[in-house]
Amino acid sequence: MKKGLLIVNTGDGKGKSTAAFGMVFRAWGRNFRICVIQFIKAETGQWGEIKAAKKLGIEWHTTGDGFTWTSKNMDETIARAKHGWELAKEKIASNQYDLIVLDEFTYTMVYNWLDTDDVLEWIRLNRPSDLHLVITGRSAPEALIQAADLVTEMTPIKHPYEQGIVAQAGVEF
Amino acid sequence: MKKGLLIVNTGDGKGKSTAAFGMVFRAWGRNFRICVIQFIKAETGQWGEIKAAKKLGIEWHTTGDGFTWTSKNMDETIARAKHGWELAKEKIASNQYDLIVLDEFTYTMVYNWLDTDDVLEWIRLNRPSDLHLVITGRSAPEALIQAADLVTEMTPIKHPYEQGIVAQAGVEF
Repeated sequence: MKKGLLIVNTGDGKGKSTAAFGMVFRAWGRNFRICVIQFIKAETGQWGEIKAAKKLGIEWHTTGDGFTWTSKNMDETIARAKHGWELAKEKIASNQYDLIVLDEFTYTMVYNWLDTDDVLEWIRLNRPSDLHLVITGRSAPEALIQAADLVTEMTPIKHPYEQGIVAQAGVEF
Repeated sequence: MKKGLLIVNTGDGKGKSTAAFGMVFRAWGRNFRICVIQFIKAETGQWGEIKAAKKLGIEWHTTGDGFTWTSKNMDETIARAKHGWELAKEKIASNQYDLIVLDEFTYTMVYNWLDTDDVLEWIRLNRPSDLHLVITGRSAPEALIQAADLVTEMTPIKHPYEQGIVAQAGVEF
């Protein structure tokens, strides 16, 4: 039995988004049709992964404003999340992709910017059966875990911030 | 304080190698000089990540024979591990890279094909201070965790094999 997988990378550790980008790298190697939608990162960010995607012509959308639950303008943050989800629905339903990544998408559900049950029901009804859909972010809701085929929890064992080392370009962003 | 990090992705879950390849993707976006050495995978494998690396001109070595602790010719398997480590030492000491990945390298220590203390002492003495070195694989030895700056454990929460779904090209390999 082969089929598209609903994949969730969650947990408090590093590597949730990074593993999704590793899947993008691998899938690009196989000439898969790929779309990445990022839900928190601002459009203006100069992230290594965005530079790479641009160079490779991989479709990549940043729909956030860089703020989240600490936003000073929560209406804007929520509106951006809803817009990102509309974009995601359009891409998923188009049946034009082999791999779609919804990066940091769990937060839209965790903070109730979107209704988890509505999102999961829509995915259940509309995801093409051969589409791999990857969702990343901390605190994946239990209903999402139930709906997923593959769930990995990234657990921090040791983190350089604890030692006073700052985030490193090319490694963490 | 900025410096090259010794990064370990371990645990029984998915995403250890994939997150390392995500770092490769991100680092490639920043024009980092990258070298990947895989310790278990056979040279003949047509993996998505190898196809991607070839297309991008990323230096990528597969030093294994596809066998590990189940090898029918353990001398060959051990010799390949030692050869891979010699290659890794050459690349690390060259100071010509920003990011080096030793994929599935923990197994060489777990199975005592290499001496863990010797490996860690060599890395401590010879790793250029700005080189990011990523080591992946299950069961990272405690001494490696102690030596590392950043350690993440990938924990399987749900796996499609349990549901009778086979591994998917472009997602898992």
